[in-house]
Amino acid sequence: MKYGARNQIEGKITKIKKGDVMGQVSLEIPAGSVMNSVMTAESIEDLGIKEGENVKVIVKAINVLLVRE
Amino acid sequence: MKYGARNQIEGKITKIKKGDVMGQVSLEIPAGSVMNSVMTAESIEDLGIKEGENVKVIVKAINVLLVRE
Amino acid sequence: MKYGARNQIEGKITKIKKGDVMGQVSLEIPAGSVMNSVMTAESIEDLGIKEGENVKVIVKAINVLLVRE
Amino acid sequence: MKYGARNQIEGKITKIKKGDVMGQVSLEIPAGSVMNSVMTAESIEDLGIKEGENVKVIVKAINVLLVRE
Amino acid sequence: MKYGARNQIEGKITKIKKGDVMGQVSLEIPAGSVMNSVMTAESIEDLGIKEGENVKVIVKAINVLLVRE
Amino acid sequence: MKYGARNQIEGKITKIKKGDVMGQVSLEIPAGSVMNSVMTAESIEDLGIKEGENVKVIVKAINVLLVRE
Repeated sequence: MKYGARNQIEGKITKIKKGDVMGQVSLEIPAGSVMNSVMTAESIEDLGIKEGENVKVIVKAINVLLVRE
Repeated sequence: MKYGARNQIEGKITKIKKGDVMGQVSLEIPAGSVMNSVMTAESIEDLGIKEGENVKVIVKAINVLLVRE
Repeated sequence: MKYGARNQIEGKITKIKKGDVMGQVSLEIPAGSVMNSVMTAESIEDLGIKEGENVKVIVKAINVLLVRE
Repeated sequence: MKYGARNQIEGKITKIKKGDVMGQVSLEIPAGSVMNSVMTAESIEDLGIKEGENVKVIVKAINVLLVRE
Repeated sequence: MKYGARNQIEGKITKIKKGDVMGQVSLEIPAGSVMNSVMTAESIEDLGIKEGENVKVIVKAINVLLVRE
Repeated sequence: MKYGARNQIEGKITKIKKGDVMGQVSLEIPAGSVMNSVMTAESIEDLGIKEGENVKVIVKAINVLLVRE
Protein backbone atom coordinates (compact mmCIF):
# COMPACT_ATOMS: atom_id res chain seq x y z
CA MET A 1 0.00 0.00 0.00
CA LYS A 2 1.44 3.34 -1.09
CA TYR A 3 -0.31 6.67 -0.57
CA GLY A 4 0.29 9.86 -2.54
CA ALA A 5 0.44 11.93 0.63
CA ARG A 6 3.34 13.09 2.80
CA ASN A 7 1.73 12.51 6.21
CA GLN A 8 0.98 8.93 7.26
CA ILE A 9 0.56 8.06 10.93
CA GLU A 10 -0.76 5.01 12.78
CA GLY A 11 -3.74 5.75 15.03
CA LYS A 12 -5.95 3.86 17.48
CA ILE A 13 -9.65 4.73 17.54
CA THR A 14 -10.87 6.04 20.91
CA LYS A 15 -14.30 7.45 20.10
CA ILE A 16 -16.86 7.42 17.27
CA LYS A 17 -19.70 9.96 17.08
CA LYS A 18 -22.26 9.69 14.29
CA GLY A 19 -24.52 12.63 13.41
CA ASP A 20 -27.24 12.99 10.80
CA VAL A 21 -24.90 13.56 7.85
CA MET A 22 -21.37 13.83 9.26
CA GLY A 23 -19.46 11.89 11.91
CA GLN A 24 -16.34 12.44 14.00
CA VAL A 25 -13.70 9.85 14.88
CA SER A 26 -11.17 10.50 17.68
CA LEU A 27 -7.81 8.76 17.60
CA GLU A 28 -4.75 8.32 19.76
CA ILE A 29 -1.47 8.66 17.89
CA PRO A 30 2.10 7.95 19.14
CA ALA A 31 3.31 10.00 22.11
CA GLY A 32 -0.23 10.06 23.51
CA SER A 33 -1.44 12.84 21.23
CA VAL A 34 -5.06 13.02 20.13
CA MET A 35 -6.25 13.50 16.53
CA ASN A 36 -9.72 13.87 15.06
CA SER A 37 -11.13 13.00 11.64
CA VAL A 38 -14.47 14.12 10.21
CA MET A 39 -16.19 12.23 7.37
CA THR A 40 -19.77 11.36 6.35
CA ALA A 41 -21.72 9.04 8.67
CA GLU A 42 -21.96 6.70 5.67
CA SER A 43 -18.17 6.53 5.39
CA ILE A 44 -17.89 5.61 9.08
CA GLU A 45 -20.35 2.75 8.49
CA ASP A 46 -18.52 1.56 5.37
CA LEU A 47 -15.16 1.64 7.15
CA GLY A 48 -16.70 -0.68 9.74
CA ILE A 49 -14.41 0.69 12.46
CA LYS A 50 -14.76 0.11 16.21
CA GLU A 51 -13.17 1.73 19.26
CA GLY A 52 -9.80 0.15 20.01
CA GLU A 53 -9.00 -0.67 16.38
CA ASN A 54 -5.97 0.63 14.50
CA VAL A 55 -6.24 2.65 11.32
CA LYS A 56 -3.93 4.56 9.02
CA VAL A 57 -4.22 8.35 9.28
CA ILE A 58 -3.50 10.17 5.99
CA VAL A 59 -3.12 13.95 5.57
CA LYS A 60 -1.96 15.67 2.39
CA ALA A 61 0.82 18.20 3.10
CA ILE A 62 -1.19 21.01 1.50
CA ASN A 63 -3.77 20.68 4.30
CA VAL A 64 -1.20 21.32 7.04
CA LEU A 65 -1.12 24.94 8.23
CA LEU A 66 1.89 26.26 10.14
CA VAL A 67 1.58 29.10 12.65
CA ARG A 68 4.41 30.92 14.38
CA GLU A 69 3.01 32.13 17.68
CA MET B 1 -4.52 31.79 20.95
CA LYS B 2 -7.45 29.55 20.05
CA TYR B 3 -7.82 27.77 16.71
CA GLY B 4 -11.06 26.49 15.18
CA ALA B 5 -9.48 23.15 14.30
CA ARG B 6 -9.38 19.81 16.11
CA ASN B 7 -5.74 18.94 15.39
CA GLN B 8 -3.00 21.06 16.96
CA ILE B 9 0.50 19.67 17.38
CA GLU B 10 3.86 21.23 18.23
CA GLY B 11 6.51 20.74 15.56
CA LYS B 12 10.19 21.56 15.04
CA ILE B 13 11.30 22.56 11.56
CA THR B 14 13.91 20.26 10.04
CA LYS B 15 13.97 21.30 6.37
CA ILE B 16 12.72 24.12 4.15
CA LYS B 17 12.54 23.76 0.36
CA LYS B 18 11.41 26.72 -1.74
CA GLY B 19 10.27 26.25 -5.34
CA ASP B 20 9.07 28.76 -7.93
CA VAL B 21 5.53 29.07 -6.57
CA MET B 22 5.17 26.50 -3.80
CA GLY B 23 7.42 25.40 -0.95
CA GLN B 24 7.64 22.42 1.39
CA VAL B 25 8.46 22.48 5.10
CA SER B 26 9.44 19.28 6.95
CA LEU B 27 8.85 19.00 10.69
CA GLU B 28 9.58 16.66 13.56
CA ILE B 29 6.63 16.08 15.88
CA PRO B 30 6.53 14.23 19.25
CA ALA B 31 7.53 10.54 19.21
CA GLY B 32 10.03 11.26 16.44
CA SER B 33 7.44 11.27 13.66
CA VAL B 34 7.90 13.42 10.56
CA MET B 35 5.27 15.73 9.09
CA ASN B 36 5.26 17.90 5.99
CA SER B 37 3.45 21.11 5.11
CA VAL B 38 3.10 22.68 1.68
CA MET B 39 2.32 26.38 1.20
CA THR B 40 3.29 29.15 -1.24
CA ALA B 41 6.95 30.22 -1.29
CA GLU B 42 5.66 33.69 -0.31
CA SER B 43 4.03 32.29 2.83
CA ILE B 44 7.31 30.62 3.83
CA GLU B 45 9.06 33.98 3.49
CA ASP B 46 6.35 35.82 5.47
CA LEU B 47 6.45 33.22 8.24
CA GLY B 48 10.17 33.95 8.54
CA ILE B 49 10.86 30.40 9.76
CA LYS B 50 14.28 28.74 10.06
CA GLU B 51 15.40 25.16 10.61
CA GLY B 52 15.37 24.28 14.31
CA GLU B 53 12.52 26.63 15.19
CA ASN B 54 9.23 25.50 16.75
CA VAL B 55 5.87 26.13 15.12
CA LYS B 56 2.27 25.15 15.71
CA VAL B 57 0.91 22.58 13.25
CA ILE B 58 -2.83 22.97 12.54
CA VAL B 59 -5.00 20.48 10.60
CA LYS B 60 -8.79 20.67 10.30
CA ALA B 61 -10.44 17.30 11.10
CA ILE B 62 -12.19 17.23 7.71
CA ASN B 63 -8.78 16.96 6.03
CA VAL B 64 -7.85 13.79 7.90
CA LEU B 65 -8.53 10.60 5.92
CA LEU B 66 -8.76 7.25 7.69
CA VAL B 67 -7.86 4.00 5.94
CA ARG B 68 -8.39 0.49 7.26
CA GLU B 69 -5.70 -1.63 5.64
CA MET C 1 1.37 35.81 15.18
CA LYS C 2 2.32 34.67 11.68
CA TYR C 3 0.22 32.29 9.58
CA GLY C 4 1.47 30.15 6.69
CA ALA C 5 -1.49 31.15 4.53
CA ARG C 6 -1.97 33.88 1.90
CA ASN C 7 -5.47 34.95 2.91
CA GLN C 8 -5.95 36.63 6.29
CA ILE C 9 -8.98 38.83 6.92
CA GLU C 10 -10.55 40.34 10.04
CA GLY C 11 -14.14 39.24 10.66
CA LYS C 12 -16.89 39.97 13.16
CA ILE C 13 -19.13 37.07 14.19
CA THR C 14 -22.80 37.57 13.35
CA LYS C 15 -24.29 34.11 13.88
CA ILE C 16 -23.34 30.74 15.41
CA LYS C 17 -25.27 27.56 14.60
CA LYS C 18 -24.31 24.31 16.34
CA GLY C 19 -25.43 20.94 14.96
CA ASP C 20 -24.83 17.42 16.24
CA VAL C 21 -21.29 17.08 14.83
CA MET C 22 -20.62 20.21 12.77
CA GLY C 23 -21.36 23.88 13.28
CA GLN C 24 -21.48 27.00 11.11
CA VAL C 25 -20.23 30.47 11.96
CA SER C 26 -21.30 33.52 9.92
CA LEU C 27 -19.07 36.59 9.79
CA GLU C 28 -19.10 40.11 8.48
CA ILE C 29 -15.88 41.16 6.76
CA PRO C 30 -14.82 44.63 5.52
CA ALA C 31 -17.06 46.25 2.88
CA GLY C 32 -20.09 44.59 4.42
CA SER C 33 -19.50 41.21 2.81
CA VAL C 34 -20.57 38.00 4.53
CA MET C 35 -18.38 34.92 5.03
CA ASN C 36 -19.11 31.52 6.54
CA SER C 37 -16.89 29.00 8.27
CA VAL C 38 -17.75 25.37 9.05
CA MET C 39 -15.95 23.42 11.79
CA THR C 40 -16.85 20.76 14.38
CA ALA C 41 -19.29 21.77 17.14
CA GLU C 42 -16.45 20.93 19.57
CA SER C 43 -14.16 23.46 17.89
CA ILE C 44 -16.83 26.16 18.22
CA GLU C 45 -17.03 25.42 21.94
CA ASP C 46 -13.24 25.43 22.36
CA LEU C 47 -12.93 28.72 20.49
CA GLY C 48 -15.37 30.17 23.03
CA ILE C 49 -16.65 32.69 20.48
CA LYS C 50 -19.78 34.83 20.82
CA GLU C 51 -21.76 36.97 18.37
CA GLY C 52 -20.23 40.42 18.01
CA GLU C 53 -16.66 39.27 18.67
CA ASN C 54 -13.78 39.70 16.24
CA VAL C 55 -11.77 36.79 14.89
CA LYS C 56 -9.07 36.22 12.32
CA VAL C 57 -10.26 34.47 9.15
CA ILE C 58 -7.59 32.29 7.50
CA VAL C 59 -7.87 30.62 4.08
CA LYS C 60 -5.01 28.83 2.30
CA ALA C 61 -4.67 30.02 -1.32
CA ILE C 62 -5.04 26.46 -2.63
CA ASN C 63 -8.63 26.43 -1.34
CA VAL C 64 -9.63 29.47 -3.38
CA LEU C 65 -11.34 28.60 -6.68
CA LEU C 66 -11.57 31.16 -9.46
CA VAL C 67 -14.40 31.11 -11.99
CA ARG C 68 -14.67 33.24 -15.13
CA GLU C 69 -18.38 33.62 -15.78
CA MET D 1 -25.03 30.48 -12.09
CA LYS D 2 -25.37 28.95 -8.66
CA TYR D 3 -22.45 27.57 -6.62
CA GLY D 4 -22.68 25.03 -3.80
CA ALA D 5 -20.38 27.10 -1.60
CA ARG D 6 -21.07 29.71 1.10
CA ASN D 7 -18.36 32.19 0.15
CA GLN D 8 -18.62 34.01 -3.16
CA ILE D 9 -16.79 37.29 -3.71
CA GLU D 10 -16.02 39.39 -6.79
CA GLY D 11 -12.30 39.89 -7.41
CA LYS D 12 -10.11 41.79 -9.88
CA ILE D 13 -6.89 40.11 -10.98
CA THR D 14 -3.76 42.07 -10.10
CA LYS D 15 -0.96 39.55 -10.72
CA ILE D 16 -0.43 36.14 -12.36
CA LYS D 17 2.66 34.04 -11.63
CA LYS D 18 3.10 30.73 -13.45
CA GLY D 19 5.53 28.10 -12.16
CA ASP D 20 6.47 24.68 -13.54
CA VAL D 21 3.39 22.87 -12.17
CA MET D 22 1.50 25.36 -10.02
CA GLY D 23 0.63 29.03 -10.41
CA GLN D 24 -0.53 31.85 -8.16
CA VAL D 25 -3.12 34.51 -8.92
CA SER D 26 -3.41 37.66 -6.79
CA LEU D 27 -6.71 39.53 -6.60
CA GLU D 28 -8.15 42.70 -5.18
CA ILE D 29 -11.49 42.26 -3.46
CA PRO D 30 -13.91 44.95 -2.12
CA ALA D 31 -12.56 47.26 0.61
CA GLY D 32 -9.10 47.07 -1.01
CA SER D 33 -8.22 43.69 0.51
CA VAL D 34 -5.90 41.28 -1.28
CA MET D 35 -6.60 37.59 -1.88
CA ASN D 36 -4.56 34.84 -3.48
CA SER D 37 -5.52 31.67 -5.29
CA VAL D 38 -3.24 28.76 -6.18
CA MET D 39 -4.07 26.31 -8.98
CA THR D 40 -2.17 24.35 -11.64
CA ALA D 41 -0.40 26.35 -14.35
CA GLU D 42 -2.62 24.47 -16.82
CA SER D 43 -5.76 25.78 -15.09
CA ILE D 44 -4.47 29.35 -15.32
CA GLU D 45 -3.99 28.86 -19.08
CA ASP D 46 -7.44 27.32 -19.53
CA LEU D 47 -9.09 30.13 -17.56
CA GLY D 48 -7.50 32.51 -20.03
CA ILE D 49 -7.35 35.27 -17.42
CA LYS D 50 -5.40 38.54 -17.66
CA GLU D 51 -4.48 41.24 -15.15
CA GLY D 52 -7.33 43.72 -14.69
CA GLU D 53 -10.09 41.21 -15.42
CA ASN D 54 -12.87 40.34 -12.97
CA VAL D 55 -13.47 36.80 -11.72
CA LYS D 56 -15.67 35.10 -9.18
CA VAL D 57 -13.83 33.90 -6.06
CA ILE D 58 -15.35 30.76 -4.50
CA VAL D 59 -14.38 29.26 -1.12
CA LYS D 60 -16.21 26.41 0.60
CA ALA D 61 -17.02 27.25 4.24
CA ILE D 62 -15.18 24.13 5.45
CA ASN D 63 -11.91 25.63 4.18
CA VAL D 64 -12.26 28.76 6.31
CA LEU D 65 -10.31 28.59 9.59
CA LEU D 66 -11.17 30.93 12.44
CA VAL D 67 -8.54 32.00 15.00
CA ARG D 68 -9.17 33.95 18.19
CA GLU D 69 -5.95 35.82 18.86
CA MET E 1 -18.01 29.42 -17.97
CA LYS E 2 -14.42 28.58 -17.13
CA TYR E 3 -13.32 27.01 -13.83
CA GLY E 4 -9.82 27.17 -12.32
CA ALA E 5 -9.87 23.45 -11.55
CA ARG E 6 -8.58 20.42 -13.46
CA ASN E 7 -11.51 18.09 -12.77
CA GLN E 8 -14.89 18.94 -14.29
CA ILE E 9 -17.50 16.23 -14.77
CA GLU E 10 -21.21 16.26 -15.60
CA GLY E 11 -23.40 14.63 -12.95
CA LYS E 12 -27.08 13.83 -12.45
CA ILE E 13 -28.49 14.19 -8.95
CA THR E 14 -29.88 10.95 -7.52
CA LYS E 15 -30.35 11.78 -3.82
CA ILE E 16 -30.37 14.80 -1.50
CA LYS E 17 -30.05 14.44 2.27
CA LYS E 18 -30.24 17.53 4.46
CA GLY E 19 -28.99 17.48 8.06
CA ASP E 20 -28.93 20.20 10.72
CA VAL E 21 -25.83 21.99 9.40
CA MET E 22 -24.47 19.87 6.55
CA GLY E 23 -26.06 18.03 3.67
CA GLN E 24 -25.04 15.30 1.23
CA VAL E 25 -25.82 15.10 -2.48
CA SER E 26 -25.39 11.84 -4.42
CA LEU E 27 -24.76 11.94 -8.16
CA GLU E 28 -24.47 9.59 -11.10
CA ILE E 29 -21.58 10.36 -13.42
CA PRO E 30 -20.77 8.82 -16.84
CA ALA E 31 -20.15 5.05 -16.93
CA GLY E 32 -22.68 4.58 -14.14
CA SER E 33 -20.29 5.60 -11.35
CA VAL E 34 -21.58 7.27 -8.18
CA MET E 35 -20.14 10.42 -6.63
CA ASN E 36 -21.02 12.30 -3.46
CA SER E 37 -20.70 15.95 -2.49
CA VAL E 38 -21.00 17.42 1.01
CA MET E 39 -21.86 21.10 1.58
CA THR E 40 -23.88 23.14 4.09
CA ALA E 41 -27.65 22.61 4.15
CA GLU E 42 -27.93 26.31 3.28
CA SER E 43 -25.87 25.80 0.12
CA ILE E 44 -28.17 22.95 -0.96
CA GLU E 45 -31.16 25.27 -0.55
CA ASP E 46 -29.47 28.11 -2.45
CA LEU E 47 -28.51 25.79 -5.30
CA GLY E 48 -32.18 24.91 -5.59
CA ILE E 49 -31.34 21.44 -6.93
CA LYS E 50 -33.75 18.51 -7.29
CA GLU E 51 -33.29 14.80 -7.95
CA GLY E 52 -32.92 14.12 -11.66
CA GLU E 53 -31.30 17.46 -12.47
CA ASN E 54 -27.86 17.85 -14.03
CA VAL E 55 -25.04 19.78 -12.36
CA LYS E 56 -21.38 20.42 -12.95
CA VAL E 57 -19.05 18.58 -10.57
CA ILE E 58 -15.81 20.45 -9.83
CA VAL E 59 -12.79 19.05 -7.94
CA LYS E 60 -9.42 20.80 -7.61
CA ALA E 61 -6.55 18.44 -8.50
CA ILE E 62 -4.91 19.04 -5.12
CA ASN E 63 -7.89 17.30 -3.45
CA VAL E 64 -7.40 14.09 -5.42
CA LEU E 65 -5.45 11.41 -3.54
CA LEU E 66 -3.85 8.53 -5.41
CA VAL E 67 -3.29 5.14 -3.76
CA ARG E 68 -1.34 2.22 -5.20
CA GLU E 69 -2.89 -0.89 -3.67
CA MET F 1 -8.77 -1.95 1.98
CA LYS F 2 -11.43 0.46 3.19
CA TYR F 3 -11.23 4.24 2.78
CA GLY F 4 -13.09 6.84 4.83
CA ALA F 5 -14.12 8.75 1.72
CA ARG F 6 -17.26 8.65 -0.45
CA ASN F 7 -15.56 8.88 -3.84
CA GLN F 8 -13.39 5.99 -4.99
CA ILE F 9 -12.67 5.47 -8.68
CA GLU F 10 -10.20 3.31 -10.62
CA GLY F 11 -7.81 5.27 -12.80
CA LYS F 12 -5.03 4.54 -15.31
CA ILE F 13 -2.05 6.89 -15.32
CA THR F 14 -1.51 8.67 -18.64
CA LYS F 15 1.05 11.36 -17.76
CA ILE F 16 3.39 12.31 -14.92
CA LYS F 17 4.91 15.81 -14.66
CA LYS F 18 7.36 16.55 -11.85
CA GLY F 19 8.17 20.14 -10.84
CA ASP F 20 10.55 21.49 -8.21
CA VAL F 21 8.19 20.97 -5.25
CA MET F 22 4.87 19.78 -6.69
CA GLY F 23 3.93 17.32 -9.41
CA GLN F 24 0.86 16.57 -11.50
CA VAL F 25 -0.49 13.15 -12.48
CA SER F 26 -3.07 12.77 -15.26
CA LEU F 27 -5.39 9.77 -15.28
CA GLU F 28 -8.01 8.16 -17.47
CA ILE F 29 -11.12 7.03 -15.61
CA PRO F 30 -14.09 4.94 -16.89
CA ALA F 31 -16.09 6.40 -19.81
CA GLY F 32 -12.88 7.95 -21.17
CA SER F 33 -12.91 10.92 -18.81
CA VAL F 34 -9.68 12.57 -17.68
CA MET F 35 -8.78 13.39 -14.08
CA ASN F 36 -5.78 15.14 -12.56
CA SER F 37 -4.12 14.85 -9.16
CA VAL F 38 -1.54 17.20 -7.68
CA MET F 39 0.83 16.13 -4.89
CA THR F 40 4.45 16.79 -3.88
CA ALA F 41 7.17 15.56 -6.25
CA GLU F 42 8.38 13.45 -3.31
CA SER F 43 5.02 11.70 -3.06
CA ILE F 44 5.13 10.87 -6.78
CA GLU F 45 8.55 9.28 -6.25
CA ASP F 46 7.40 7.33 -3.19
CA LEU F 47 4.30 6.05 -5.00
CA GLY F 48 6.65 4.66 -7.62
CA ILE F 49 4.00 5.04 -10.33
CA LYS F 50 4.53 4.79 -14.11
CA GLU F 51 2.39 5.66 -17.10
CA GLY F 52 -0.04 2.85 -17.94
CA GLU F 53 -0.38 1.67 -14.33
CA ASN F 54 -3.66 1.52 -12.43
CA VAL F 55 -4.24 3.39 -9.17
CA LYS F 56 -7.13 4.10 -6.84
CA VAL F 57 -8.43 7.67 -6.99
CA ILE F 58 -9.83 8.93 -3.65
CA VAL F 59 -11.75 12.20 -3.12
CA LYS F 60 -13.51 13.19 0.10
CA ALA F 61 -17.11 14.36 -0.56
CA ILE F 62 -16.43 17.70 1.14
CA ASN F 63 -13.97 18.55 -1.65
CA VAL F 64 -16.56 18.14 -4.39
CA LEU F 65 -18.16 21.42 -5.48
CA LEU F 66 -21.46 21.42 -7.36
CA VAL F 67 -22.36 24.20 -9.78
CA ARG F 68 -25.73 24.73 -11.48
CA GLU F 69 -24.95 26.49 -14.73
